[in-house]
Amino acid sequence: MIGVAVLGAGRIAQVHVKAIHAAGARFVAVYDVVTAAAQWLAEQHGAAAETSVAAILARPDVDAVIIASPTDTHVDFTIRCAEAGKAVLCEKPLALEVAEAQRCIDRLGSCPTVIQLGFNRRFDPSHRALQQALAAGDIGALEQLTITSRDPGPPPTSYLLHSGGLFKDMTIHDLDMARWLLDEPIVSVYAQGSCLVDPAIGALGDIDTASVMLRTASGKQCTILNSRRAVYGYDQRIEALGATGMLVSGNHYETSLLRFSAKSAGAPTALQNFFLDRYADSYRLELIDFLDAVRTGRAPSVSLGDGLAALRLAEAAQQSLASGQAIAVN
Amino acid sequence: MIGVAVLGAGRIAQVHVKAIHAAGARFVAVYDVVTAAAQWLAEQHGAAAETSVAAILARPDVDAVIIASPTDTHVDFTIRCAEAGKAVLCEKPLALEVAEAQRCIDRLGSCPTVIQLGFNRRFDPSHRALQQALAAGDIGALEQLTITSRDPGPPPTSYLLHSGGLFKDMTIHDLDMARWLLDEPIVSVYAQGSCLVDPAIGALGDIDTASVMLRTASGKQCTILNSRRAVYGYDQRIEALGATGMLVSGNHYETSLLRFSAKSAGAPTALQNFFLDRYADSYRLELIDFLDAVRTGRAPSVSLGDGLAALRLAEAAQQSLASGQAIAVN
Amino acid sequence: MIGVAVLGAGRIAQVHVKAIHAAGARFVAVYDVVTAAAQWLAEQHGAAAETSVAAILARPDVDAVIIASPTDTHVDFTIRCAEAGKAVLCEKPLALEVAEAQRCIDRLGSCPTVIQLGFNRRFDPSHRALQQALAAGDIGALEQLTITSRDPGPPPTSYLLHSGGLFKDMTIHDLDMARWLLDEPIVSVYAQGSCLVDPAIGALGDIDTASVMLRTASGKQCTILNSRRAVYGYDQRIEALGATGMLVSGNHYETSLLRFSAKSAGAPTALQNFFLDRYADSYRLELIDFLDAVRTGRAPSVSLGDGLAALRLAEAAQQSLASGQAIAVN
Amino acid sequence: MIGVAVLGAGRIAQVHVKAIHAAGARFVAVYDVVTAAAQWLAEQHGAAAETSVAAILARPDVDAVIIASPTDTHVDFTIRCAEAGKAVLCEKPLALEVAEAQRCIDRLGSCPTVIQLGFNRRFDPSHRALQQALAAGDIGALEQLTITSRDPGPPPTSYLLHSGGLFKDMTIHDLDMARWLLDEPIVSVYAQGSCLVDPAIGALGDIDTASVMLRTASGKQCTILNSRRAVYGYDQRIEALGATGMLVSGNHYETSLLRFSAKSAGAPTALQNFFLDRYADSYRLELIDFLDAVRTGRAPSVSLGDGLAALRLAEAAQQSLASGQAIAVN
Repeated sequence: MIGVAVLGAGRIAQVHVKAIHAAGARFVAVYDVVTAAAQWLAEQHGAAAETSVAAILARPDVDAVIIASPTDTHVDFTIRCAEAGKAVLCEKPLALEVAEAQRCIDRLGSCPTVIQLGFNRRFDPSHRALQQALAAGDIGALEQLTITSRDPGPPPTSYLLHSGGLFKDMTIHDLDMARWLLDEPIVSVYAQGSCLVDPAIGALGDIDTASVMLRTASGKQCTILNSRRAVYGYDQRIEALGATGMLVSGNHYETSLLRFSAKSAGAPTALQNFFLDRYADSYRLELIDFLDAVRTGRAPSVSLGDGLAALRLAEAAQQSLASGQAIAVN
Repeated sequence: MIGVAVLGAGRIAQVHVKAIHAAGARFVAVYDVVTAAAQWLAEQHGAAAETSVAAILARPDVDAVIIASPTDTHVDFTIRCAEAGKAVLCEKPLALEVAEAQRCIDRLGSCPTVIQLGFNRRFDPSHRALQQALAAGDIGALEQLTITSRDPGPPPTSYLLHSGGLFKDMTIHDLDMARWLLDEPIVSVYAQGSCLVDPAIGALGDIDTASVMLRTASGKQCTILNSRRAVYGYDQRIEALGATGMLVSGNHYETSLLRFSAKSAGAPTALQNFFLDRYADSYRLELIDFLDAVRTGRAPSVSLGDGLAALRLAEAAQQSLASGQAIAVN
Repeated sequence: MIGVAVLGAGRIAQVHVKAIHAAGARFVAVYDVVTAAAQWLAEQHGAAAETSVAAILARPDVDAVIIASPTDTHVDFTIRCAEAGKAVLCEKPLALEVAEAQRCIDRLGSCPTVIQLGFNRRFDPSHRALQQALAAGDIGALEQLTITSRDPGPPPTSYLLHSGGLFKDMTIHDLDMARWLLDEPIVSVYAQGSCLVDPAIGALGDIDTASVMLRTASGKQCTILNSRRAVYGYDQRIEALGATGMLVSGNHYETSLLRFSAKSAGAPTALQNFFLDRYADSYRLELIDFLDAVRTGRAPSVSLGDGLAALRLAEAAQQSLASGQAIAVN
Repeated sequence: MIGVAVLGAGRIAQVHVKAIHAAGARFVAVYDVVTAAAQWLAEQHGAAAETSVAAILARPDVDAVIIASPTDTHVDFTIRCAEAGKAVLCEKPLALEVAEAQRCIDRLGSCPTVIQLGFNRRFDPSHRALQQALAAGDIGALEQLTITSRDPGPPPTSYLLHSGGLFKDMTIHDLDMARWLLDEPIVSVYAQGSCLVDPAIGALGDIDTASVMLRTASGKQCTILNSRRAVYGYDQRIEALGATGMLVSGNHYETSLLRFSAKSAGAPTALQNFFLDRYADSYRLELIDFLDAVRTGRAPSVSLGDGLAALRLAEAAQQSLASGQAIAVN
């Protein structure tokens, strides 16, 4: 049974701990800079709370480490864990700067351990069914791809301050989806951004509403629609137009209840609220996939290079927003 | 160009007059016991208002007659028109009593003219697409059929007094649908009826909520669900379970607008309100089909015998309700 | 932490064991007449495999017992467990004969322990949302209830031989749903049954296609539609018409993928396959609810009396099918 | 009764003639450069076939003229009809060049007659319901607007040669929708175009797949997705994200039939095929609205200025495509 440690004991770490159990692995130890948080999580699950990363890495019963600590620790922790011979699943984003992500990749270039980046949405059953149908040729050649990704409401300002901005924090997931589904190099990025939801977000120099248009070398077109606020729930859709059809990965509802009244007909509730519900399956399946790579030694499904590539596109979107012009990428 | 006269100048007559134009025939003359109503309709469309049925039948430019007068005139008018050599499209029901309907059929047994009964729902594009898919074997042998038919609200008491009761007035449409779709003899009828919508309906000895269960010789099962009130609009659905699939003819909405809010997701309006909207197409297509029979001399798509058969089932439902037991029919 | 034992180690027992973990209780021990099955399940989860019910009951660390053994053991095991002071969650049906179920209830009349019957569908989030909306008056007084419940395909003949027949094996779930949602006494049962799916089922004297109509004292109408075969997947729907609206608990799909082609538009896959997928949540929530009753000492959400009442209705359906007439119940 | 003449006797002229009847006006005369076409259409409807525009304008029984002739005649015919004192409904586009459209507007600046441009989609009941809900504040301030508009298949090359290119021929409808729904000045246009459907289209210097991004002064974002091919049918959707909700005007299907099989669940047919079906209602309602303006003397709902504004945006899209950069407009 693979032994897994977790760096970080916050909300997303807790999601991963549940997934460890469900995947039939063993949650061995946890470290968090807030010792009490690590202790609480460890006690809940009969694991050890260690007081340093070094202590985690020193444990022979730790085969793999999930890095769920703040973004600015991702590169260092990834390097330390990988160089200690542990398999690594690092939460997204790998870094907030291209240079930093590049440094990580350069350093670990020949490292033989499995290192996977946490773009969990690739494992969502609905998105994955779309990707598989696309790859199977169900709609012929892809022509237009539309990714809608809107949060139910904005995070606190304290979070936004260290988020890297909407493109690196939120759009980066969609940029990875775009790369995964377009399956050919993106050559151009055009971005619009506005502050329409909350002036406090604008005061930070950030935006809360964005539309991004990508183009591949062969002329495939991709649109990403983001907002920090969709009062009707967590809006997560992908639509792919191809030569012989269209595929849509639609939204998920909490229940299948419909209500018909004199004034309306439809679901009496909003969509699933947020990513912990909507993507619960994808976190679970991501870990199963990662553990499979650890067991078999195969290459991870999502590489550090995927993290770097998405980050490059997010930076291009920032440049486009600043300049008002489309940015060529390669 | 076929010349068509209409007996009756009320709401349903007006629907037919529109359909005459759309079908490329000529609306020639109208008669209504209320002379002013006939004159008003005639003037709107450049037709003649005649003051008797005899005057209508005397016109050589009248090839076909649509009977849209009160139910108690249907049999007599059908006989007079048919014996005058006119083609006839008679509104449902043919009569309120089996004996009366039988008399009409006996009298006109050898009459060579086209006589069609107005079970217009057979021409609804959605119901017809279901029937055609069924006939084409798309779901294999039919096993269970469910027909939901609910009015948006009850008619006035004055109407109900002469309606023949829910089974003969409302269910009769669904009994015809059942016969058409089951496509084999019905051997048993069981009916439940309640007065849940309006006590005034119960005071008339009528019911407003009914569930009817039919069975064919080979064991196919059919359920009809009726109500005089569906506040969410005119609820008209058919569902067919077969050996290799299921077909559903679903409801129609006024627009395709959906609204997503913090509290709900769906159509911000109810279903189409009532039969003049929902079945506008079926009235139009019914007339085109009837005129085609007139032109080609082929047998009508819906016969007086179909009217009689549905009426027999409605009477069996009344007997079942009275006795609380299933009634064998043949 | 509540200690739970399981009697039976088959498919449904495994579902409960997963739910025990998810509910934060402890899976302590298992017994199955097939010793190897019990050992296998025990090993998977670090529990003890006991070789008799007595051994299970003798363990002080067993607070509650889930009875997931064959139906003909349910009453005896329930009595033994309850009299040993263990809380009991017994799978449905309680028994195949009314007299047997009555014997259990009589014997345990004053037993103070929590005894819950496993009508898990009451805990399905979609069905429950419908029930809560109904109870909250969202559609006013209930008038017509339609329960569609069709399996993807028939079970093996070996299962059917000991199933008690379609009404007691399959319809019983829907009869419980009807009782729960109608929320007033049912006074009449009319049933139709056919063998349309597989002649082998008819050869056993059983049916595979059924339509059941219930009526309450106040005239509410309920229809249940059953089939042992729905090739499009596990068809589980509830529809409630009320004075001010309609509620529908619709089907569940494996993913939210839709495909639009030149020939069709919709989901490229069938519905969720069967109850282990469709009702996974309801098994989980059922156990959470049961454990809450165990912890707090409150009455269970589903009683043995509920099991008896559903069984009485199933017997009435059998009588109706045999006689071809509606059966009065009280 | 208003007398209406039609210039042009082709497919779209025939749609308007049907709408004239349905709107209770009188179809008086028709002119087409192909005399036989005009004669055929006139005979069908008891109207006169004139052999020149002058002859049409000389008729005192012509109150209004519908211009449904080739695009390069629109400006001249509009000027001649309006200066002859006839009300005018001119099909879109007003012209293929901004200068030509401007010339028409300058010339007719003080002309008192009703002159309406044929952006018929503004009258589609579903799109209009969206616009009204938006105007009523149902979703608060608009933030992101997405317009999907895809034809079932490309027109013949002979048509494309004189179409003005995708932006002026096809996107122009969506640009008008955008102006109508955004309801504030558009300040920026960015366009991507590809030839992915048919190389013959590229050989003409045209594109068949386009994505256009618009921005208003206050930061509202709008995306238009166009393709000359959607094999699943005529794809016409509008989606509006606002501060308190989302509105969607969805696609229309030919029937409400759904089919559930072992492999799929959904509509067994594609969407409505093309604009003559999908927008039949909007042509009809457009004419009713136009005739109301003629009768009452009020300003038309869609002005020549609306035609010019959409044309300016189409030209900006062409410039953006040529330069690869966003184009500022005012």
